[in-house]
Amino acid sequence: MFDSSVWRKLKRGPQIITVKDASMIAGITGLQSGDRVIDAGAGSGYLAIHLGSVVAPFGKVSSYEFRPEFAELARKNVSRAGLEKVVEIKEKSAFDGFDEAEADLITLDMAESEKVLQHAKTAVKNNGWIVGYIPNVEQVSRFVKEAENLKLKVDRVTEFYLRDWKIRPYGSRPENQAMVFTAFLVFARKIPESDFDREKEENTKENRRDRRIKDKLKG
Amino acid sequence: MFDSSVWRKLKRGPQIITVKDASMIAGITGLQSGDRVIDAGAGSGYLAIHLGSVVAPFGKVSSYEFRPEFAELARKNVSRAGLEKVVEIKEKSAFDGFDEAEADLITLDMAESEKVLQHAKTAVKNNGWIVGYIPNVEQVSRFVKEAENLKLKVDRVTEFYLRDWKIRPYGSRPENQAMVFTAFLVFARKIPESDFDREKEENTKENRRDRRIKDKLKG
Amino acid sequence: MFDSSVWRKLKRGPQIITVKDASMIAGITGLQSGDRVIDAGAGSGYLAIHLGSVVAPFGKVSSYEFRPEFAELARKNVSRAGLEKVVEIKEKSAFDGFDEAEADLITLDMAESEKVLQHAKTAVKNNGWIVGYIPNVEQVSRFVKEAENLKLKVDRVTEFYLRDWKIRPYGSRPENQAMVFTAFLVFARKIPESDFDREKEENTKENRRDRRIKDKLKG
Amino acid sequence: MFDSSVWRKLKRGPQIITVKDASMIAGITGLQSGDRVIDAGAGSGYLAIHLGSVVAPFGKVSSYEFRPEFAELARKNVSRAGLEKVVEIKEKSAFDGFDEAEADLITLDMAESEKVLQHAKTAVKNNGWIVGYIPNVEQVSRFVKEAENLKLKVDRVTEFYLRDWKIRPYGSRPENQAMVFTAFLVFARKIPESDFDREKEENTKENRRDRRIKDKLKG
Repeated sequence: MFDSSVWRKLKRGPQIITVKDASMIAGITGLQSGDRVIDAGAGSGYLAIHLGSVVAPFGKVSSYEFRPEFAELARKNVSRAGLEKVVEIKEKSAFDGFDEAEADLITLDMAESEKVLQHAKTAVKNNGWIVGYIPNVEQVSRFVKEAENLKLKVDRVTEFYLRDWKIRPYGSRPENQAMVFTAFLVFARKIPESDFDREKEENTKENRRDRRIKDKLKG
Repeated sequence: MFDSSVWRKLKRGPQIITVKDASMIAGITGLQSGDRVIDAGAGSGYLAIHLGSVVAPFGKVSSYEFRPEFAELARKNVSRAGLEKVVEIKEKSAFDGFDEAEADLITLDMAESEKVLQHAKTAVKNNGWIVGYIPNVEQVSRFVKEAENLKLKVDRVTEFYLRDWKIRPYGSRPENQAMVFTAFLVFARKIPESDFDREKEENTKENRRDRRIKDKLKG
Repeated sequence: MFDSSVWRKLKRGPQIITVKDASMIAGITGLQSGDRVIDAGAGSGYLAIHLGSVVAPFGKVSSYEFRPEFAELARKNVSRAGLEKVVEIKEKSAFDGFDEAEADLITLDMAESEKVLQHAKTAVKNNGWIVGYIPNVEQVSRFVKEAENLKLKVDRVTEFYLRDWKIRPYGSRPENQAMVFTAFLVFARKIPESDFDREKEENTKENRRDRRIKDKLKG
Repeated sequence: MFDSSVWRKLKRGPQIITVKDASMIAGITGLQSGDRVIDAGAGSGYLAIHLGSVVAPFGKVSSYEFRPEFAELARKNVSRAGLEKVVEIKEKSAFDGFDEAEADLITLDMAESEKVLQHAKTAVKNNGWIVGYIPNVEQVSRFVKEAENLKLKVDRVTEFYLRDWKIRPYGSRPENQAMVFTAFLVFARKIPESDFDREKEENTKENRRDRRIKDKLKG
């Protein structure tokens, strides 16, 4: 059991991915021990550490961060979390490509992440996941467009929020205030290009209409 | 990487925990490879399988299910997911107690789960988690009350939902309909009783007020 | 057009109903000019003033408040809003019953409001609305139970929240924090008792099942 | 009291504004009896009828709809709602400008509504409201940009949703499914241009920073 109180001890940069987002990325992609992850950019290292705790002890997280002061901070946090053997912070820019290949999961939490998608496609294995963590709708739109240009399958774009409750002997109610937004999550997969083309063909308006008509004639 | 498309192949009972709930349980508790989990009741086995995929290959999930037809269904689903070595379905009632000890995490998704809390406290290790997955506010309230009677620390009671988005060249918008509720999640921990008593003492109204006054006097 | 900037000028008590809640109460019940409203308790008068602005100039809001200091505060706020001819603050307890009859709408925002439902039923006209504004689920449950005992039709129990967005040239995103809970709204109506009994009969489990079977045989 | 069951009797077009949206538009703008409203496009007339029920009997809603079949449908619905004296459906395009002046409120629920903002500014009175009901984030962004070009004050951009609850003797819980999105609401006001310029000046980055520094020096 990873000691989640570690989170509170980590030094934080200006923005930080939350435990709910990290949990959802790990859970929806089916991340497990032994998996190989590429992460960019590291920021204060929170996401890399969370994913590292899941892929430990035999998996690996390579986290890219081109700003020296953040790379330094992230490395200290990895050390505080006791994950030096699992998580490596690389002081490099993701725009220059990744050293690793056949990754199970690539997480992109950085400005203009759509420009890294080509590199991500090269570095991820077949059926592996590329997940964008993106604060603005406009960037989500550019990310999805570029993913489809590259024939990556965009599985879902989602956001979600937690609401905590107060349960007391004299009555139960939700907390009044909540963090209702951190970022959008875009889940994309590298599927065989022939599958991508077939799905695209099946989803043209004409073909969807044809299927509906056929279904009606049958049913 | 656990093949999450397995979920779609599983045979389902009437109600099923969702991937978002399972992800959040694993993520917030810091579950990782090698951990030992007790789960009750198994239902169709979904939660046991999700948690099993995280604790594999060396961890263990013991999932209790007293209804023979569900135990049978859950076993088939475990086999479909290829997790026979990690997840064991036990045809037993959680009301009779657990065979295991020193569990990292115990998940309770069953009617009257508050009546199993004493057994759960016995079977969980120190600082381990007990998580209730509970559909009704009234049961949440009974669960929290009983947890506090047993000096378990109720860390948070939460609910959350996902909203998927449609991202299209001509415009981006959320989907109109969403599943906005599955169940409440109650996260409780077994902490040293002396810590429980001290925290309780610190949180009496009088002491909170005294601290506020002292803080003000300090400036 | 009622000057909604008035709200910012009102003196406030510890808790205040929000514009979204007041808007929803007015909108769902179809409140309009000329309607007669009973409100209890007044608190700082916010809800009475909002409803008063809708029923003006010929309608009437009678707002009950037994605590002298709040009655005084509410009266000052009504005066600031320029609605003295429409909204009357009565320094009386709703537990003693209402002076008015044939009200279109009765709003109950007070502790133990379920104990006022009998008085409310007497004072509301046929097909008129009784709306409870209730912070705790347990009180909602008592309110609904008592309403059904009195053969009032509980139309819906709802909660809702607003999320504001930041729209900027470089990107659009929701605000991170939001008020996600104020209170539950219970919408009940006084319908003819014969209708109440018939609807209840139609909604027994057996009858719902029978209808489903008939529908299947037909369809 | 407006008979809200009328809504269920109205004939509907493909898309319809919901009661929650109409309630919020009326409530946040402080709409009341006697006010003058311009609405475009009418669609099936739902929003015009809701607003008409609030401004009746002396107010007026002029609703623009250039598609003959919708204008016809909206007129029938207005008649079903008994609001012929209050709501007028005009078979005209809002792109050609409005006949009315000094409107208290203008609601825009139509494609490319940003192109009507200049006409809306001309037709709305000082301190009056212009409200956009907009399904896509990208259109919201264009609307806000054009509003600011025209020196209209964008007060807030918001979305919200209702969640209904099931309250039953054996337990209380939210409904599982809900409509979580209909459209974004943009609330803009025509304020004196000198106020717009001053607020803009006050909100430049430099001036916000200067104020923060001054506040610190003071406090």
